[in-house]
Amino acid sequence: MSTSTSTSRATAFEDRLRTVARERYHDRHPFNVRMHQGELTPDELRRWILNRFHYQRHIPVKDALVLAKLDGPQLRRMWLRRIEEHDGRAEGEGGIERWLRLGEAAGLDRARLLSGAEVLPGVRLAVDGYVNFCRLRSPLEAVAASLTELSAPGIMRTRIAAFERHYRWIDADGLAYFRSRETQGRQDSGEALGLVLDWARTEADQERAVAALAFKCDVLWSLLDAIDYADGKERP
Amino acid sequence: MSTSTSTSRATAFEDRLRTVARERYHDRHPFNVRMHQGELTPDELRRWILNRFHYQRHIPVKDALVLAKLDGPQLRRMWLRRIEEHDGRAEGEGGIERWLRLGEAAGLDRARLLSGAEVLPGVRLAVDGYVNFCRLRSPLEAVAASLTELSAPGIMRTRIAAFERHYRWIDADGLAYFRSRETQGRQDSGEALGLVLDWARTEADQERAVAALAFKCDVLWSLLDAIDYADGKERP
Repeated sequence: MSTSTSTSRATAFEDRLRTVARERYHDRHPFNVRMHQGELTPDELRRWILNRFHYQRHIPVKDALVLAKLDGPQLRRMWLRRIEEHDGRAEGEGGIERWLRLGEAAGLDRARLLSGAEVLPGVRLAVDGYVNFCRLRSPLEAVAASLTELSAPGIMRTRIAAFERHYRWIDADGLAYFRSRETQGRQDSGEALGLVLDWARTEADQERAVAALAFKCDVLWSLLDAIDYADGKERP
Repeated sequence: MSTSTSTSRATAFEDRLRTVARERYHDRHPFNVRMHQGELTPDELRRWILNRFHYQRHIPVKDALVLAKLDGPQLRRMWLRRIEEHDGRAEGEGGIERWLRLGEAAGLDRARLLSGAEVLPGVRLAVDGYVNFCRLRSPLEAVAASLTELSAPGIMRTRIAAFERHYRWIDADGLAYFRSRETQGRQDSGEALGLVLDWARTEADQERAVAALAFKCDVLWSLLDAIDYADGKERP
């Protein structure tokens, strides 16, 4: 294979990943569209915050499982930073804490989020599915699944603007999580994309990486399905 | 159960753990005894350094698997420090790097250690066994298995003295790994013991914790068996 063919194949692969991350991303989900258009009721928004917290609190778990697959101190140092970002370097810091504050700003007691008692079955299954994917699949697939973060900075910008405009009853301090992910998502996805492009040299590996990313898009989509469906459907 | 019975049961449990960590620890293994008595040839010492490196480089892997089992940012922050200790916060730092320098001080090129080509099958199996134990067992068992570190500061002190006395051909700078573990082993084992005492409230759980620690002692022992047995037994 000539260098230019190899380069164009690599570019085509990156384009495919970026296309999947864009076209199958959950920003197009009807529930998210309604959120960003300011159409959610306070109860709907709280249901989303509470259920999405179940996903948030499992991010360090899946990242520890990815970490265990990475070879050598250099790669692990890079991935370890993600766990630190979510758990914080000290008490009262980190992404999980910021999400709890978002909940409080929306009138949800942190004990209610931490108990997990109200998490919807579909949300639990989606999160379990993602954690187990990272536990059981190859390093390439586990890292490729994280590439939904290619679309994270965009959705965060839109979301912050939407909250500031439509949901003023939520204190602006509560939006710190979204703000931090705008920057962090860019670094995370840049590093992960570098690894995936470096590792997936065969066509079979590239297919596996694209499928992993599509799977992860389905996880996030399915999570919103469950939250959207639950409207007015309290279990007897 | 009265408070005093409960307290005495907790103390008896801690005593059992400390007894296993002391009596089944690999400092009593014939190969280690010979090492500390200054009886190893340079080739034997190098065989130990090279094979033990296979264990060292898997410590962050098993710790990432333990991390994935821990509930909440506070516990994970505590355990994350162990991974940082071994991988280092930056290039050129950390326990793995210090072990590579021990190898260099003993005349082993770091590329030879990093390739892993000369690792003995029994050592590979022992390390796989430990990593899989941490992957598959309960958080309690995975953490209890780390309690061999209760005996680490002691063995490190003796080892440093033995190396300084008997193996002067190894530069003293090469012993930095042993020095760092003397302090670090104390902190690590203190934290892990706290968790195990807190979590193992039933007799069944205490039995499982003691069995996990005994298993880990067997891992370290078996590793030295393989290294000791290999003497003069190059495979055809």
